[in-house]
Amino acid sequence: MAERTEAQHAEKMKKRQAAQARIVAGKTIEKGLLIVHTGAGKGKTTAALGMAVRAIGHGMKVGVIQFVKGAMTTGEKAVFDAFPAHAEFKPMGEGFTWDTQDRARDIATARVAWDEVKRMIADPAYDMVVADELNIVLRYDYLPLDEVLAVLTARPAMKHVVVTGRNAPAALIEAADLVTEMTQVKHPFRSGVKAQAGIEF
Amino acid sequence: MAERTEAQHAEKMKKRQAAQARIVAGKTIEKGLLIVHTGAGKGKTTAALGMAVRAIGHGMKVGVIQFVKGAMTTGEKAVFDAFPAHAEFKPMGEGFTWDTQDRARDIATARVAWDEVKRMIADPAYDMVVADELNIVLRYDYLPLDEVLAVLTARPAMKHVVVTGRNAPAALIEAADLVTEMTQVKHPFRSGVKAQAGIEF
Repeated sequence: MAERTEAQHAEKMKKRQAAQARIVAGKTIEKGLLIVHTGAGKGKTTAALGMAVRAIGHGMKVGVIQFVKGAMTTGEKAVFDAFPAHAEFKPMGEGFTWDTQDRARDIATARVAWDEVKRMIADPAYDMVVADELNIVLRYDYLPLDEVLAVLTARPAMKHVVVTGRNAPAALIEAADLVTEMTQVKHPFRSGVKAQAGIEF
Repeated sequence: MAERTEAQHAEKMKKRQAAQARIVAGKTIEKGLLIVHTGAGKGKTTAALGMAVRAIGHGMKVGVIQFVKGAMTTGEKAVFDAFPAHAEFKPMGEGFTWDTQDRARDIATARVAWDEVKRMIADPAYDMVVADELNIVLRYDYLPLDEVLAVLTARPAMKHVVVTGRNAPAALIEAADLVTEMTQVKHPFRSGVKAQAGIEF
């Protein structure tokens, strides 16, 4: 860029500004989005929580259901609990599946969490519903994919639903409006660094 | 999985639990991490905000500097402002670069924002500093990469720094502890859906 003159820079940016304005003007649809965060990298849940924070800040009401995390007191819960009228945060998993070692119990737990997601999707009070780690539950066949897809695609017109977890089923990606894959480039566990407050939990 | 018996499932999960416990036991280092969210997909900033929420929930103090977003009232700002002792949120960009069309002004703006990041990194009161969209500024050569890397790598031992933005420089990725690339799989703009509150801003 050093060789470009200031006038050339201004001209280029002006063109880009105009192009950007045209693009934005062409987008007129408002709708509730089905959003999927998948991939093996970090950031799937945290990005969903960040989106929940945005929505809360806009006065929207958000429900967050965690499917496979235990009843830990996560950092985020403390923040969401400060906005009782706008955020409902429910850690409903009993722990990771390798901690329970009981498939029947895991299936029952998944069903209770899913019923809560369904309730929030149906209730007009909620603008956004986060089904955290639902993909893991689908991966283990703890919930029927057809039933889940039927509920998600038949959601009310302005309801945003965010589904997280690695290995999102192809049919869910197909049904979604916005899909991001989080790819792991580098992870500190490889250097012996342990899970730390504020980062992993 | 249907063909596997319950006993086989329990056995497999027990092995996985033991393996997981061994992995966790081997991770003993605690340190401030240099975290990079890059890639063309969504979720880079929102994942950083989600991490900030976690940290705030743990009683940590977080500083967020936005390099290229204008002085809009974002949803997240309203939430962070509810935790004045734990969150400092500063949108310091004047807008996207195509809106200013003035490189000298953009460079001056970047410098003011960077000085604030440096202050927060040096101040022991902050546990985590988010330099949102710093990669964009580096991409345009608005700040010298060498100077930025020198400050980031010499940060205090327990200070977490999160840098976001597409096109992270290779040297920054090399210096980082945790790098996630957000890859766009599907985006609703392609279907004419406009930017919506709670999702894009």
